[in-house]
Amino acid sequence: MATPILSLDNMNQNLKGMEFPWPSLVVAAGNHLEKEQKMGKLFPFPNVIHSHAGDPQGMGQKPLTFFQQVMSLCINPSLLDDENFPPDAKQRARIFLANCKGHSLGAYTASPGIDVVRKQVAKYIEKRDSKYCDYENIFLSNGATDGVRAVMNLVNHSTTGKLPGVMIPIPQYPLFSALVQEYGMYQIDYFLDEENDWAIDVKELRRAVRESRKHCDPRMLVVINPGNPSGFVLSKKDIKDIIRFAYEESLFILADEVYQFNVYEDGLHFYSFKKILIEMGPPYNELELASFMSASKGFMGECGSRGGFCEIINLDPGVKKMFWKYISSHLCSSTIGQAMTYCITNPPHPNEPSYDKFMKEKTAILQSLKERANYVTKTFNSIKGLECKKVVGAMYAFPRIFIPQKVIEKAKKLGIEPDELYGLELLETVGVCIIPGNQFGQRPGTYHFRMTFLPQIEDVKIILQRISKFQKIFMEKYQ
Amino acid sequence: MATPILSLDNMNQNLKGMEFPWPSLVVAAGNHLEKEQKMGKLFPFPNVIHSHAGDPQGMGQKPLTFFQQVMSLCINPSLLDDENFPPDAKQRARIFLANCKGHSLGAYTASPGIDVVRKQVAKYIEKRDSKYCDYENIFLSNGATDGVRAVMNLVNHSTTGKLPGVMIPIPQYPLFSALVQEYGMYQIDYFLDEENDWAIDVKELRRAVRESRKHCDPRMLVVINPGNPSGFVLSKKDIKDIIRFAYEESLFILADEVYQFNVYEDGLHFYSFKKILIEMGPPYNELELASFMSASKGFMGECGSRGGFCEIINLDPGVKKMFWKYISSHLCSSTIGQAMTYCITNPPHPNEPSYDKFMKEKTAILQSLKERANYVTKTFNSIKGLECKKVVGAMYAFPRIFIPQKVIEKAKKLGIEPDELYGLELLETVGVCIIPGNQFGQRPGTYHFRMTFLPQIEDVKIILQRISKFQKIFMEKYQ
Repeated sequence: MATPILSLDNMNQNLKGMEFPWPSLVVAAGNHLEKEQKMGKLFPFPNVIHSHAGDPQGMGQKPLTFFQQVMSLCINPSLLDDENFPPDAKQRARIFLANCKGHSLGAYTASPGIDVVRKQVAKYIEKRDSKYCDYENIFLSNGATDGVRAVMNLVNHSTTGKLPGVMIPIPQYPLFSALVQEYGMYQIDYFLDEENDWAIDVKELRRAVRESRKHCDPRMLVVINPGNPSGFVLSKKDIKDIIRFAYEESLFILADEVYQFNVYEDGLHFYSFKKILIEMGPPYNELELASFMSASKGFMGECGSRGGFCEIINLDPGVKKMFWKYISSHLCSSTIGQAMTYCITNPPHPNEPSYDKFMKEKTAILQSLKERANYVTKTFNSIKGLECKKVVGAMYAFPRIFIPQKVIEKAKKLGIEPDELYGLELLETVGVCIIPGNQFGQRPGTYHFRMTFLPQIEDVKIILQRISKFQKIFMEKYQ
Repeated sequence: MATPILSLDNMNQNLKGMEFPWPSLVVAAGNHLEKEQKMGKLFPFPNVIHSHAGDPQGMGQKPLTFFQQVMSLCINPSLLDDENFPPDAKQRARIFLANCKGHSLGAYTASPGIDVVRKQVAKYIEKRDSKYCDYENIFLSNGATDGVRAVMNLVNHSTTGKLPGVMIPIPQYPLFSALVQEYGMYQIDYFLDEENDWAIDVKELRRAVRESRKHCDPRMLVVINPGNPSGFVLSKKDIKDIIRFAYEESLFILADEVYQFNVYEDGLHFYSFKKILIEMGPPYNELELASFMSASKGFMGECGSRGGFCEIINLDPGVKKMFWKYISSHLCSSTIGQAMTYCITNPPHPNEPSYDKFMKEKTAILQSLKERANYVTKTFNSIKGLECKKVVGAMYAFPRIFIPQKVIEKAKKLGIEPDELYGLELLETVGVCIIPGNQFGQRPGTYHFRMTFLPQIEDVKIILQRISKFQKIFMEKYQ
């Protein structure tokens, strides 16, 4: 073999350290084991249950009828003559198509997205926040992911000679740490307060930023609300405190708000950072803020469409012009994702024919998620060796595992993390695939895993029975 | 106003210099003028005709029926019972859905794409090249754009202390220069030989790489075949010479082959770099190569679906592992783009019911593009002050403009490029929107513009009549 031009030594070194859960040890083992089982190998469980990904439809959730109808009408306008499609679905499709170049989903759109969708998103945000929203601050992206990528890259600079620093909650959604790594920035960990149901403590934010200044130039503050993987939902007061902190420290706020539909506790509400920031008045209402939303989560769970949007406010006009030029090199996000975003922000109204069915489907999904969130919290806390804070938002539980010393020593010998060893043994013993806590970050010496409760309720029950069974085996084996 | 946290001085400085045609002076003026006209302002032409973007459906091309049918079936499986859909479209949709998690387009896929699509792409490549293709070397991307972004980022490193250098043809598709700028690399211009129909001259490659070594560490060689904006198609011998050069200089080859269906000259063929590289045998067949393909071009022109794929061969196994980890942080490309890619590489076979209609539609589009390519070349060459090399591939003409000295002086005073002034006056005088040559790069002292011949033939004729009229006015005004 010739010497390769590209080697581990001369490839982009930033990419070498990137970690993401999908190709990680436990998930890869889960996929491998499932393949082996399909090929006839015997295991002490009937099937592998994947409960690692935030992928509602991948785990059995049915797409909403209205969205399916509008999407198929948009993609195949000959169906507009079909009487089986309701008039409100046809109306959405007609408006969307009239705003596509060539009246076709096959054309490129303007890079920030089609104006009619950006305007609809602005209306949705105005209704959500009771605050004005300028559609020219909205850009549509492939999921929230591409929006986060673009905005973090925009702010990726330091004038002090130190690396630009990004404050990231621990535990976090690993997209943020992956981008810090890819962009060669500095990750400033701030720990969520597990004792206090994973709340954000401003004292901890101050500690983290203060200590980080030795190593970096802090530029950005990432907040995830509702929390992934924590399941926490911030109160108005929490958000105010965080905004004041960001103002004092001149930090650009990135608010991952993709779970804004996913709040399960009666009396709890989702408040957007934008709403609170505007309500706080000067000087806070002039702070720069980017808020990210996705078609992939909520009740719709339309991950495959790659729909998403970002509202970015108070950007310096010169910077905004550069940002618009930058995103234009991406051409545009998928038109089906844009059509999905249009529908999600413009669902059937009470006087429209699809309203009842739509509300029934939507409510059933959210109600079931609420039940699963409660069930999961309760059940985890009944299992010896596990402890789980109350899940009030998002789609995940992040229980703490009390790992015996023997496991820690064994993992060290194997060169893996103790929670990875836990995840592998859980998988091999009862066929449940979760993601070890170290992928999200956790306080040193504590161990967790993330389990999504997106599998349907019967499967969630089986998962918890299996975990309960495994815990007994595991504790007996190592204690 | 509070001082913004993010300013032109402390934003990512690489993004500041990024240029892309869509937000450029002439295209922006074209969009603005069209809006003014719609609002009632009078102009000396009935409408603005956009002939700047490589956007087939945006310019009136109809989507192929078979693709529309399969896509709507995939997105709305209740239509599988509808007798109006042909069985071969249903068969494609059933296979695709069976390979989606939860049997739904709404689920995430594996990051490199769904295996059944990657395997189908591999089959397509095997048939195209008569060479083995390993589906594990294929990854699906949002258009070709995201694939190019990822691979260029992978190679973005230098071990010499100099910037990594990227060889880019001039003229080029501006994605490449934009990424060089975004990633902070060094652009090595190699000039295509206009006198020789825009061919690639290996002597010029050698000159460019030799001179560049003062400033950079050359790592990559970008080739675009068929050429955008040049319209040139490389011969087998050309490709062999280029591969030998890349081998001698240890360059990673990035082959933009998105126009592989768009060859219009009888007797001319598209040869992929992969095919020729394999045929050349050792040591050339061990060279690293990434080839990019898109659903957006060809005869299908499905830009909005953001379908695309990349075949990357001979990658070091360790590097490949890192690359797979890296793309996993992007989650996955749009499922509709993946479904589209599946159909494009698996169109109706001669014994299937949709075959005749599909072939009729496909042939009509390619035949019409061929006629337009010939018509455009011939007509440009009949207009005084313009000269156009024969367009034998892709979707663009890139005629040379002979610009009078007075125009050059006027542009200098206005602080714009002479070909921008030409583009603005063309727009304001006859309502035709093109892209000035400087956006693609051109030899100093020469001026061009890129016009796509994607508008339907009647519109192409009107565009050329208008340009002809404008040329007379322009030459009289400035000579």
